[in-house]
Amino acid sequence: MQRIRMGMVGGGEGAFIGAIHRMAAALDGEVELVCGAFSQSPDKAQRSATTLGIPTDRGYPDYITMLDAEAARPDDQRMQFVAIVTPNDTHFPIASAALARGFHVLSDKPATLDFQQARALAQAVRESGLCYGITHTYTGYPMVREARARIKAGELGGIRKVLVDYSQGWLANHGEEITNKQAQWRLDPERAGASCCMGDIGVHAANLAEYVSGQQITALCSDLRATVSGRALDDDGAALLKFDGGARGVLNASQIATGEENNLVIRVYGERGGLEWRQQEPNTLWLRWPDQPHQQLRAGAEYLSAGAQTATRTPMGHPEGYIEAFANIYREFAACVRSHNNQRIPPEEASDLPGIAMALRGMAFIETAVNASLSEQKWHDIPTLEDSH
Amino acid sequence: MQRIRMGMVGGGEGAFIGAIHRMAAALDGEVELVCGAFSQSPDKAQRSATTLGIPTDRGYPDYITMLDAEAARPDDQRMQFVAIVTPNDTHFPIASAALARGFHVLSDKPATLDFQQARALAQAVRESGLCYGITHTYTGYPMVREARARIKAGELGGIRKVLVDYSQGWLANHGEEITNKQAQWRLDPERAGASCCMGDIGVHAANLAEYVSGQQITALCSDLRATVSGRALDDDGAALLKFDGGARGVLNASQIATGEENNLVIRVYGERGGLEWRQQEPNTLWLRWPDQPHQQLRAGAEYLSAGAQTATRTPMGHPEGYIEAFANIYREFAACVRSHNNQRIPPEEASDLPGIAMALRGMAFIETAVNASLSEQKWHDIPTLEDSH
Amino acid sequence: MQRIRMGMVGGGEGAFIGAIHRMAAALDGEVELVCGAFSQSPDKAQRSATTLGIPTDRGYPDYITMLDAEAARPDDQRMQFVAIVTPNDTHFPIASAALARGFHVLSDKPATLDFQQARALAQAVRESGLCYGITHTYTGYPMVREARARIKAGELGGIRKVLVDYSQGWLANHGEEITNKQAQWRLDPERAGASCCMGDIGVHAANLAEYVSGQQITALCSDLRATVSGRALDDDGAALLKFDGGARGVLNASQIATGEENNLVIRVYGERGGLEWRQQEPNTLWLRWPDQPHQQLRAGAEYLSAGAQTATRTPMGHPEGYIEAFANIYREFAACVRSHNNQRIPPEEASDLPGIAMALRGMAFIETAVNASLSEQKWHDIPTLEDSH
Amino acid sequence: MQRIRMGMVGGGEGAFIGAIHRMAAALDGEVELVCGAFSQSPDKAQRSATTLGIPTDRGYPDYITMLDAEAARPDDQRMQFVAIVTPNDTHFPIASAALARGFHVLSDKPATLDFQQARALAQAVRESGLCYGITHTYTGYPMVREARARIKAGELGGIRKVLVDYSQGWLANHGEEITNKQAQWRLDPERAGASCCMGDIGVHAANLAEYVSGQQITALCSDLRATVSGRALDDDGAALLKFDGGARGVLNASQIATGEENNLVIRVYGERGGLEWRQQEPNTLWLRWPDQPHQQLRAGAEYLSAGAQTATRTPMGHPEGYIEAFANIYREFAACVRSHNNQRIPPEEASDLPGIAMALRGMAFIETAVNASLSEQKWHDIPTLEDSH
Repeated sequence: MQRIRMGMVGGGEGAFIGAIHRMAAALDGEVELVCGAFSQSPDKAQRSATTLGIPTDRGYPDYITMLDAEAARPDDQRMQFVAIVTPNDTHFPIASAALARGFHVLSDKPATLDFQQARALAQAVRESGLCYGITHTYTGYPMVREARARIKAGELGGIRKVLVDYSQGWLANHGEEITNKQAQWRLDPERAGASCCMGDIGVHAANLAEYVSGQQITALCSDLRATVSGRALDDDGAALLKFDGGARGVLNASQIATGEENNLVIRVYGERGGLEWRQQEPNTLWLRWPDQPHQQLRAGAEYLSAGAQTATRTPMGHPEGYIEAFANIYREFAACVRSHNNQRIPPEEASDLPGIAMALRGMAFIETAVNASLSEQKWHDIPTLEDSH
Repeated sequence: MQRIRMGMVGGGEGAFIGAIHRMAAALDGEVELVCGAFSQSPDKAQRSATTLGIPTDRGYPDYITMLDAEAARPDDQRMQFVAIVTPNDTHFPIASAALARGFHVLSDKPATLDFQQARALAQAVRESGLCYGITHTYTGYPMVREARARIKAGELGGIRKVLVDYSQGWLANHGEEITNKQAQWRLDPERAGASCCMGDIGVHAANLAEYVSGQQITALCSDLRATVSGRALDDDGAALLKFDGGARGVLNASQIATGEENNLVIRVYGERGGLEWRQQEPNTLWLRWPDQPHQQLRAGAEYLSAGAQTATRTPMGHPEGYIEAFANIYREFAACVRSHNNQRIPPEEASDLPGIAMALRGMAFIETAVNASLSEQKWHDIPTLEDSH
Repeated sequence: MQRIRMGMVGGGEGAFIGAIHRMAAALDGEVELVCGAFSQSPDKAQRSATTLGIPTDRGYPDYITMLDAEAARPDDQRMQFVAIVTPNDTHFPIASAALARGFHVLSDKPATLDFQQARALAQAVRESGLCYGITHTYTGYPMVREARARIKAGELGGIRKVLVDYSQGWLANHGEEITNKQAQWRLDPERAGASCCMGDIGVHAANLAEYVSGQQITALCSDLRATVSGRALDDDGAALLKFDGGARGVLNASQIATGEENNLVIRVYGERGGLEWRQQEPNTLWLRWPDQPHQQLRAGAEYLSAGAQTATRTPMGHPEGYIEAFANIYREFAACVRSHNNQRIPPEEASDLPGIAMALRGMAFIETAVNASLSEQKWHDIPTLEDSH
Repeated sequence: MQRIRMGMVGGGEGAFIGAIHRMAAALDGEVELVCGAFSQSPDKAQRSATTLGIPTDRGYPDYITMLDAEAARPDDQRMQFVAIVTPNDTHFPIASAALARGFHVLSDKPATLDFQQARALAQAVRESGLCYGITHTYTGYPMVREARARIKAGELGGIRKVLVDYSQGWLANHGEEITNKQAQWRLDPERAGASCCMGDIGVHAANLAEYVSGQQITALCSDLRATVSGRALDDDGAALLKFDGGARGVLNASQIATGEENNLVIRVYGERGGLEWRQQEPNTLWLRWPDQPHQQLRAGAEYLSAGAQTATRTPMGHPEGYIEAFANIYREFAACVRSHNNQRIPPEEASDLPGIAMALRGMAFIETAVNASLSEQKWHDIPTLEDSH
């Protein structure tokens, strides 16, 4: 199997998410990192390239140089897609420039700086006919896919209630803005957009709620705030939710939940049963029934759906985690690129790859959550792609 | 030690909560059941009395007869307090009649049918100088008291976020109203008041949020509904919360969370740490810190606060549960009655007994949650006792 | 329902297990404490009686006085059974004296000081035709009974492996013998018998293994020791086990497992499935299967066996604990006494009450575990009642 | 950084552990698979090579051909080490042949077919001066390293008790031998050696006990058996243990624990505290103390030891698992090879890489456990390297 050639923008020395992308790309041997513009600092960019074993002439000083230079290489050598692992404000320009030059794009979330950019991006993706993926990583966990599959198959009956909670504590103190580089840009409206907490983790929670329940959020009522004084953006928030299939829900997202690590939990209740998944113990999915014992489903089991089995690499009882979930996104992105090469990209809804529709939904959610929080009115509709034209 | 003499209204054959009250009263040997009006059906009332070993002449056909007959008995024999374990609509008339005849009152929650009755009850209690207790049972758990004590001592720093979730599944199906006697009256506005779910369990959740955090809810934004069609009252709901100490919060309460048992969970986050308590594993309290290992505190440990130690009967590792928590309320109520006999009832805030102030807060919460849900406006203030005059 | 009248030997001020017995007896209102010889110190005995509301003339200075005085009372007033909550060396003389005077006996474990006494006691019980119960409390938990019922019904197939672990840390330090009264006598061969750890908790573990698996231990190979230097008796030990139904097993019991509370866990594996029960979360029973999700069974559920349902007092999700399990033993003992009064004591195997057969098995286990540990030979048979004649 | 070049023996299509080795090798980008003899079937070997992107001329039909052909390649192209992922009987001949040709060796456990081979292998490794690693994967988990570090630092005080349990259910049924290729050879004495269960998982458990506790097992008393009739080798067993630092212990290993996945648990108790680690939730380490709250340490935390931090790739709350633990072994093996190239291999005790000493200990354990089980004598010494000369 021919490896897909990846270039990376961002992810230089000391960056958390860039390293995760590289491990996820490497795990299955389907993707090869061939070039990068790893940092805005030329020195750092070059050092990172060297450390990563990238030939000197493919460690670029900036993304435009990289895109142009790679576009000029022969077909069988040049980068095939770009992985974007930079702060939010650069996602859209990088993605646009890449698509314009015929490169597929795999982007960190949120997709863009605001919803307007997201609509423009969606149009660019559509017009390009290229692959676009977004790292809504939590959809890559096998037991999340099992949860979705069970609900889709109707096992829980009609879905009535969706609770999603994403609690972290890393922004509990003011000091973070000073010492932590990621905190700096995430709390800066110029670089992060209209929201810190909703843009970083609330958008994951909303995505997970829709992905698992199979319903879309139509309206919300939110309360966001900058808990730590002096911040320009929210570090905490919650929202009441209405879904298009009739479910109600609650979303909580916090970066000031002191002592919490990365505590993302989803619970969904239907007419016939309920389920629960906890990211910190991701290999377990709970199903609960009114009249029989609770069931604990485990990753790797043969009784799981095909989608969950495919997303698992080890036998039951050999835990997998975040990197493997991330690698599933990479594997599916590589599959998309191979399909494109064969002239047949599948539509997003037929693929497990989180794509442009999710990207757009995410930006609509963030924008609505921010606006609703400022309003005295209770419910606010989330715009759909159709509304936005 | 002289046992305090109790009479009971309600709690005849087959009633769940009456039996719990009797076990809780018996556990420590400080209270003795001497009489009762156990059922509105005279036959059943008599049978219940016999089964419970009550002398024939003290198994009464109704509460007025009981109150009058007991009032006529000699001081050293007559019932000293009445335990009210009936549907909501009768709490107020029974409590009022008992107080009027000089009997102390220990009542099931919610305190009354509506907030107006609650204000009248509060006045009656104040004027009587008698003991009034309400079975906000979850405050009786040792680790809930530990949680409150740690926050009060400032260990978590200023409290910023309070999340409380009370999920049950027993009303998930329409059939419940037909076969389950408790479901029948809880879904009947005449007997239950303006809310089923908030009146039954939401009020516990709100009480726990205030008790543990040490802050009071000042305003809320809610979304309640009758999920199962045809119901006159809510069976599910959620609310965004504002607290007087500056915290924000979320309360979720559901009786249609299919597969859930009695899943009450509270999490509180302060500037310096966070805590979590789960009712289904009540002997554990989690403390979480940003820079040191999570701590699991366990009931019965010597490092716990005096209040938590007093509320525990067994050594660490010998689990206690719901009946013991309930018995703590009874033990504290008995202490109040003994104090009264000695002319010195402590003020509610100096006691561990949930009293009339909590009763009133609960009814204000229920009323506001119901009204806010019907409104297009986001935030609704919760009336305080002062507002209500 | 007429209450059964109980007298108590031991359990004065400050004694842990005496207070547990009294709460367990009180919980269901079927037993009434009417007299006691609570302490060998006359002052303390009298103070304890007063605190417990026992009339002055029924707080006795010693058990012989109590037995004689109570035997002299009218039938409808005198104590009907004696609860023995003293150190091990007095169990046999008190039980013998009580049986000789026609009183039923409910005794703490282990039944006697050694196996020889146990055989004599068994004979005395048999000849008396009276009720004898022993507080193998862990058999009183509903989910332990469910475990036994499932295995008995063949759901796990033939049982192949039994693992039981009882780890405590309270004797980890030498200091315990000095300050802790219970530690003093448990480490004293004169008062505790040939073993501390096996006599106190190993015997519970062995009992649980046999009770749940439905198989009896036929032979063992053990390694006990006094870990803390200077002790005359073992504070830790383990044994390999053979069972009469072909299962193999491991028993571990430790009082020097520093940091452990009362961590008793049993796991049983059959041809078709496995189960696990953990005393510190007693309301849950795990069933595990090779080809379907793990099942978590919960106390109070309607899908449980009749025996488990009867042993539960609260609805699912309202946790019960150690006192309720203990109270189940009391309730079953009271049932035995009532049956006796009606001339029809059921045989031990038809009752849920742990009786003289378990008492005898326990003493045989302790004696064999101690002897085997001293031997260079691997396997040692456990004597049965038949062997012992 | 130059990648280390790996060749693989075994691990063709459908083999579980070969795929794990490849992912582990790929994860950090420090190792590159350049050739392989993936199967004894030439067709399968070739197909596997193609699928894995190995050039046609480096997909070899057998290991001798591979070793010879690679040895003939130029220094900067040829394979630097061989990963051995075949059944047990071939570990020794392959490793010996590789060492003889100057290739480093990374081998699956157990190291060899029997203890005698292991001594010969140890001598060969010593004489070669080459790197030898053995995939005692569980030592690669960060929280296992934290456990070892805490004990080494004396935090628990002197270690007194070690309990290790490794329960699986995959061999519970006779059918496995027929349909499962791995079951076939593991139950065949010719290919697996003297033990199935102890050789496959008991050896992991013994290794973990020694690695974490810092003490070595000196003697054991065991009971192994073929539970499922007709098997030539054990599928279940347990052993009492004595350690050189004075600790006692219990090891249980079972492949017939129906319903268990890969349930490896270690608990260690010292004078001052205890710890617990569970492989199925590997990112958590429990520390328990007599007089303060239990502590839950979490992978990725800054309070962990340097060794645990180095072994973690993601921030706290982003779970890692089996593949990452495995990758740690690969990373340390790659470091050893780089050191060798620089003329300075560290001694095994200064490295985190499980090496020949562990390999030898493992074979001594297996041999003693098998022999002890056949004996009527209780204790059997485990031979040390010194004994064996």
